[in-house]
Amino acid sequence: MSKLIGVLTAGGDSPGLNAALRGMGKSAIDAFGMQVLGFRDGFRGLMENRTIRLGSMELSGILTMGGTILGTSRDKPHRMPVGGKILDMTDVIEENYRNHHLEALVCLGGGGTQKNALRLKERGLNIITLPKTIDNDVAMTDTTFGFDTALGIATEAIDRLHSTAHSHHRIIVVEVMGHRVGWLALGAGLAGGADIILIPEIPYDINLLAEAVLKRSRSGKRFSIVAVAEGAVSKQDAGKPDKHKDDQSDGSTKQKTRLTSNTMRLARGLEKLTGLESRVTILGHLQRGGAPSAADRILATRLGTACTDLINEGRFGVMVAARGDGSEPVLLEEVAGKVKFIPVDHPLIRSARMVGTCLGD
Amino acid sequence: MSKLIGVLTAGGDSPGLNAALRGMGKSAIDAFGMQVLGFRDGFRGLMENRTIRLGSMELSGILTMGGTILGTSRDKPHRMPVGGKILDMTDVIEENYRNHHLEALVCLGGGGTQKNALRLKERGLNIITLPKTIDNDVAMTDTTFGFDTALGIATEAIDRLHSTAHSHHRIIVVEVMGHRVGWLALGAGLAGGADIILIPEIPYDINLLAEAVLKRSRSGKRFSIVAVAEGAVSKQDAGKPDKHKDDQSDGSTKQKTRLTSNTMRLARGLEKLTGLESRVTILGHLQRGGAPSAADRILATRLGTACTDLINEGRFGVMVAARGDGSEPVLLEEVAGKVKFIPVDHPLIRSARMVGTCLGD
Amino acid sequence: MSKLIGVLTAGGDSPGLNAALRGMGKSAIDAFGMQVLGFRDGFRGLMENRTIRLGSMELSGILTMGGTILGTSRDKPHRMPVGGKILDMTDVIEENYRNHHLEALVCLGGGGTQKNALRLKERGLNIITLPKTIDNDVAMTDTTFGFDTALGIATEAIDRLHSTAHSHHRIIVVEVMGHRVGWLALGAGLAGGADIILIPEIPYDINLLAEAVLKRSRSGKRFSIVAVAEGAVSKQDAGKPDKHKDDQSDGSTKQKTRLTSNTMRLARGLEKLTGLESRVTILGHLQRGGAPSAADRILATRLGTACTDLINEGRFGVMVAARGDGSEPVLLEEVAGKVKFIPVDHPLIRSARMVGTCLGD
Amino acid sequence: MSKLIGVLTAGGDSPGLNAALRGMGKSAIDAFGMQVLGFRDGFRGLMENRTIRLGSMELSGILTMGGTILGTSRDKPHRMPVGGKILDMTDVIEENYRNHHLEALVCLGGGGTQKNALRLKERGLNIITLPKTIDNDVAMTDTTFGFDTALGIATEAIDRLHSTAHSHHRIIVVEVMGHRVGWLALGAGLAGGADIILIPEIPYDINLLAEAVLKRSRSGKRFSIVAVAEGAVSKQDAGKPDKHKDDQSDGSTKQKTRLTSNTMRLARGLEKLTGLESRVTILGHLQRGGAPSAADRILATRLGTACTDLINEGRFGVMVAARGDGSEPVLLEEVAGKVKFIPVDHPLIRSARMVGTCLGD
Repeated sequence: MSKLIGVLTAGGDSPGLNAALRGMGKSAIDAFGMQVLGFRDGFRGLMENRTIRLGSMELSGILTMGGTILGTSRDKPHRMPVGGKILDMTDVIEENYRNHHLEALVCLGGGGTQKNALRLKERGLNIITLPKTIDNDVAMTDTTFGFDTALGIATEAIDRLHSTAHSHHRIIVVEVMGHRVGWLALGAGLAGGADIILIPEIPYDINLLAEAVLKRSRSGKRFSIVAVAEGAVSKQDAGKPDKHKDDQSDGSTKQKTRLTSNTMRLARGLEKLTGLESRVTILGHLQRGGAPSAADRILATRLGTACTDLINEGRFGVMVAARGDGSEPVLLEEVAGKVKFIPVDHPLIRSARMVGTCLGD
Repeated sequence: MSKLIGVLTAGGDSPGLNAALRGMGKSAIDAFGMQVLGFRDGFRGLMENRTIRLGSMELSGILTMGGTILGTSRDKPHRMPVGGKILDMTDVIEENYRNHHLEALVCLGGGGTQKNALRLKERGLNIITLPKTIDNDVAMTDTTFGFDTALGIATEAIDRLHSTAHSHHRIIVVEVMGHRVGWLALGAGLAGGADIILIPEIPYDINLLAEAVLKRSRSGKRFSIVAVAEGAVSKQDAGKPDKHKDDQSDGSTKQKTRLTSNTMRLARGLEKLTGLESRVTILGHLQRGGAPSAADRILATRLGTACTDLINEGRFGVMVAARGDGSEPVLLEEVAGKVKFIPVDHPLIRSARMVGTCLGD
Repeated sequence: MSKLIGVLTAGGDSPGLNAALRGMGKSAIDAFGMQVLGFRDGFRGLMENRTIRLGSMELSGILTMGGTILGTSRDKPHRMPVGGKILDMTDVIEENYRNHHLEALVCLGGGGTQKNALRLKERGLNIITLPKTIDNDVAMTDTTFGFDTALGIATEAIDRLHSTAHSHHRIIVVEVMGHRVGWLALGAGLAGGADIILIPEIPYDINLLAEAVLKRSRSGKRFSIVAVAEGAVSKQDAGKPDKHKDDQSDGSTKQKTRLTSNTMRLARGLEKLTGLESRVTILGHLQRGGAPSAADRILATRLGTACTDLINEGRFGVMVAARGDGSEPVLLEEVAGKVKFIPVDHPLIRSARMVGTCLGD
Repeated sequence: MSKLIGVLTAGGDSPGLNAALRGMGKSAIDAFGMQVLGFRDGFRGLMENRTIRLGSMELSGILTMGGTILGTSRDKPHRMPVGGKILDMTDVIEENYRNHHLEALVCLGGGGTQKNALRLKERGLNIITLPKTIDNDVAMTDTTFGFDTALGIATEAIDRLHSTAHSHHRIIVVEVMGHRVGWLALGAGLAGGADIILIPEIPYDINLLAEAVLKRSRSGKRFSIVAVAEGAVSKQDAGKPDKHKDDQSDGSTKQKTRLTSNTMRLARGLEKLTGLESRVTILGHLQRGGAPSAADRILATRLGTACTDLINEGRFGVMVAARGDGSEPVLLEEVAGKVKFIPVDHPLIRSARMVGTCLGD
C-alpha cells in the first residue's frame, strides 16, 4: 500500500505556500507513488479532521497562486480555542494523525509553527517542516519563501512613493511588515533607496531623524522617504517593558492597530519637529498577497521536492532549511523558539550606512 | 520672433503630467517653432518667477516618469502664503506673465486649478488648461489623465488582498483615494471584485454592511473585501454639517489623518458587529506614484498636442477636454467650481449591483 | 421555469473574456433568476453539444483570470472541419440550440464571430454578441475588451526595451499584434515613445525609415525603437495582390510565421541600410495573456451586465457596443463583415506626428 | 589629495548596473572621500578617454534605472575595432589609466569582462571587477546581478503564455536568453511551470519532446509550454563541431538570428511531429530591460559597497563575488575564462524532474 503524507499550512499566509504544496505533493505522487492528504486551516483542521485529498488535479495550476489552497490559522495544538475555552488538543491531534496512518506530517509555517511541530515530534509523530514567512525570521535557514515576494511588493511601493514625493515638499512614511525583525524594512528600504530605515534591531531617536530630514531639506532635496518596520521602536520606548508582548506573538487585531498607531505617531512627530507635511502609507496585507516571485516559486519548489526526498529516506523531525543552491535538514530542536534578528554587523547594515541611509541611531 | 508658451502643474500630482508636458512641449517646438517656459511648483513659481526652459532635451525621456518635473503646489494666486500671511498675489502673477511676453499660459491641474485659471483668464491672460487628477472629478471632460493609472494601482492592491484574504477568515478594508467623489473606489472595487464598495455619493449604513459580511460568512465565504473611498460617509454622519469642509478642499495633513481615522473606525465597527477580525490597508500616495499607464500616456499626449493646436489657432480661455477618441475645448466658465460626482443611475452603479456588490445602502 | 441562456467564446482569446462571462452570468442568475449554460471551445462545442453549467460557483474567482474558462476555437458553423472534411454544420448547431430550449445565445468574439453570429440570427436564433479582441478592429463600438490589456503589455515591453536600448548603439524592432489594423502598434508605440511606428493603414518606405534612424544617430541619439504591427506592409508590397489573404483571416501558423519573417526581414533591411546592429523582439501571445487590466475588467463587466438587461427585455440580434460610459445595442447587420481601420486623420495619428514620430511615409 | 577611482561597464547590459555604480560611487565619495570617474561605453571609452565625473548628483536617482548611465560595448582592449581594423589597444588604455593617476579601475561585466580585466591586471593596473550578467554564468560567485530581474521577466512571460495557452489546443515555445548556459531557462521554466525545459547542458531529442507533448494531450491537457534556452541544442547538433563558435562569444546579430532560427525550427518540428499548432515568443532584449528587481538592487548595492571597502584596503586584482549574505574577493585568475554551467546533478535539475518536467533527454 502506498504511503500517505499529511500536510498543513499554519501561521500568517505567505506567497509560495501553494508552490511548496505543489512541489512536495507532485514529487511525492509522481516520483514515489505516495498519496497526499491536506488538512484545512492549519492545526485546527488536523484537530477537527477536516481534510482534502491532494491529487495531481488539485496540485495543478497552483504554482503561481498567492495564499494557500488549504487555508491557515494561528491556532496552536496545545492552546486551541474550543467552545469559548482555550484547551490543549494535542491528544486529539495525535489521535487523528494515527487514525489516518500517516507516514509523516509536513507543516509549512514560520517561527510559531516550528514550535508547534517540535511538540508533535516529541509525541513521536514523524514531522517535517518547511520555513515560510514574509518576515525571514526563521532560524537556521538562509531564507524563507514569501520573503522575496514581500520584498518586491514593498520595494515597488517605495518606488511609487518616490516618484510622487519628488513633486511635493514632504515626508512620506511607509510602514512595512516584518513582525519583530527588520529584514523586510531593511531590504525594501535599501532596494527602494529610502532615506531613513527604521528596524526593531536598532531603536531610533526621533530627533536624529528630524535632523536627517532637515539636512536633506537644506541641501535642496525636497522630500524624505522613511521605511519603518512595524516592529521598530524609539530609544525611549525600547527601554520600557513591553506590556503588549503577547499581542506581538499572535498578530492580533489589537496588536496591528497598536503598531499602526506607532507609525502614525512617528509621522506626526516628524511633522512637528521639521515643519514639513507628512503622509502615511500602510501596506498591510498587500505584502502577503499576489503571485509569488520567481525566486520564491523556485525556492518553494526546491524545498518541497527536497522534503519528499527526506520522507522517502525516513528522515523526520527536521526542518528543510535553504542552504546555498540546495537544502539541508536541520533538527527542529535547533530551530524552535529562536528568532533570526539582523546582526548589527550584517553586510546590509554596513551597505545601508555606506550609501548614506539614516538608521535612526 | 517665436512665441513663448508658459506652463505649470498645480494641485496634487498625478501620473501623466510629464507625458502631457512632453506632448504639449515637443509639438509646440517641433510643429510650430514655439518656445516653452516651465514655472516651478505651480502658481508659486509663477509668482516667484522661478522658471526652467523646456527644450527638446528637457522633454526627452519623461514620457514614462511619474510625478512632474516642474514640481507642484496647492497654492492659489489669490490666497498665497507669503511670509506667514495669506496674500492675494494675482497682480504679481499677472506682471510676471506680461514681463515674459507669454503667448499663453498652460495650467495642468484638477478642479482647483480650473478655478485659479479662470481668475487669471478674467484678468485678460491667455489661459488653457488640461484636466489632470487621479480623482476623475473634473466636470465637462470624459476623463482626466492620472485616473486610469490610479485605478490600476488600486485594483492591483485589491487583487493582492484577495489572494491573502482567501487564506484567513477576515474582513479586509482598503482605503482608496478620490477626494469628494467615488470614481476611484467604484472603479477599483468593481475591477477588483470587492464585496462592498463605499462611495461618498451613497452614504452607507454600517449595520447593512455587517449584515452583508455575515451573509457571505454564512454561505461559506471566508472573507469580505471592503473598498472604501476616502470621502465615504455613513448615513448618520452624512446629515451633519461638515466642520472640516475647508480641510477637504486643500488635501491637508489634518484632513488626511481625519479621513484615515474614519477608515480605521469603520474597520473596528465592522469587527465589533460581525465578530470577525479586520485588517486595514491605506494605499495613500501609492496611488499617485509610478509610471503612468499606457492609456494615461496616450490621453496626456493627445490632450497635450491638441492644446498646442489650440494655441496655434489662438483659442484661449478653455480647458482641453477629452471627448471620445479626440478632444474639445470647453470654456473655463463651464468647468470651474463644478465637481463631477457619480450619478446614482450611472451604468457602473447598476453593474456593481447586478453582480452582487453591496453599496452600503 | 427559469430562462436558460447559452454562452460561448470564439476566435482568438482575449483578456476580459472571463470577466464578461462573470458579469453576464452573475447578473443573469442573481438579478433575473435565469440559468446559464456554457458551450466549450466556441461554435465547436455548440455543434458537439459539449456544455458546462455556469452557476455562481463556476463564475466566482474568474474576474481576474486571463483566457477563457470555456475554451475557444476559430471554427465557423458553416465551415467546420469534421472528420477531415470542411462541412456546413449550421443545422446541427441550430438543432442543439433548440433542444436546449435556449432563451438566447450570447457569443463573445471579434470580427469573425460577429459574422458567424449574424448567420445564426438569420436562422431565427436569439443572438447577442459582445465585442472582444485585442486588435480593437470591431466596427460600431468605441472599443473592445482585451485591447487595453494588450496595449499595456506591449507598452511595458517597449518601456523595457528603451532602458536597454540606451546602453547600446542599436535598432530594436518589436513586433506587435493587431491583425490587419494598427490600433495596438499605434497605441503602444505612442505610449512607449517608439521612434518609428509602422501600421497597416500607412504602408512604409524602408528608405525613409533608415533615414529617420540615421538622423537620430547624427543628432547623438544612440538608438531607435521601431514598433511594427504584424500586418504592416512596405509600399512595394502594398501594391501586390495578397496571395496569403486567407491566412490573414484565420490567424494560422503559416500566417504567423510569414508575418514574423516580414519583421525579421525589416530588421535586417534596416541593419543593411544604416550599418547599425538590430535586435528583434516578437511579443507573440504574451499580448493575449495574463490578468485583464482594470479598465478591461470594468468594460467587460459593464457590457456583460448590459447584455443581461437586453436579454431580459427581449432585445436580440444585436452586439452590445461600448458607447461612452455606457453601452448601446447595435444590429449585427451593421457590424458583421466590417473592419475598424484607423482613419488617417485620427487624432492619434496627428498626435504621433506632432511629437516627432516617424510613420514610415 | 583624494583618491580617484575609475569605473566602466562592459559587455551586454544588465539590470542592476546603475545600482552597482551608485553603491560603489556613493560609498567611495561619502565614506572615504574618494572621487569617481566614469568611462563611457566600456573599454572603448577608456581607450578614447571619454569620461564623465560621477558625483553625488550623477549617482542620485539611478538606483532603479535599467541599462547603464555609462553606456557599454563588447569591445576588448586587445582586439579593438579602430578605423576598420582590429588592433591591440592595451597600451593606450594603460596610458590613459596612468595619466588619470587612477587609484583603481572598477570593471562591471560578465565573463568576457573578467578576461579583459585580468589582462589589464597583468599589466600592473589595480583592477577590481563586479560580476554582472543576466546569464548567471560567471564562475566563483553565488550569483550575478541582473539574473534575478531577467528571471522575473521571463517567468512573468511564461505566466502570461499559460493563461492564453489554456484557451487553445497548442504548443507555445518561448525562447529565453542565457548565452551558452541554461540558468535562465531552467529558472524561469521551473518558476513558470513550463512543461518542457531545454538547456544547453542537456542536449534534447525532439522525438522525446513530441512524445511528452502527445502524452499530455492524451491525458486531456490542451497545451504544452516549452521554455528553450537560446543556446539549447538537439542531440544531433550537439555532436557537430560548432562553426559559429566565435559568434557565440560576441552576441552578434548573426548569432542572434541563427539562434532564433533554431527556435523557429524547433517549433515547426514539434508542429510536424505532433500535429498541433505551435506559436513562438522571442523575448529578446525584454530580458535585459526595465527596473532591476529588489533582490538585484540589494545585491548590486552590496557588491558595490564591498568593492569600495576593498579599494580602501588596497585589495586589487579580484572580483567581488557574492557569497551567502555577504561577499568575498576572488582572484581574477580563478574567474577569467571559466563558465559556470549547470551541473547535471544540480538540485534544480532534480526538482524539475521530480515535478514532472520534461528536460528533453
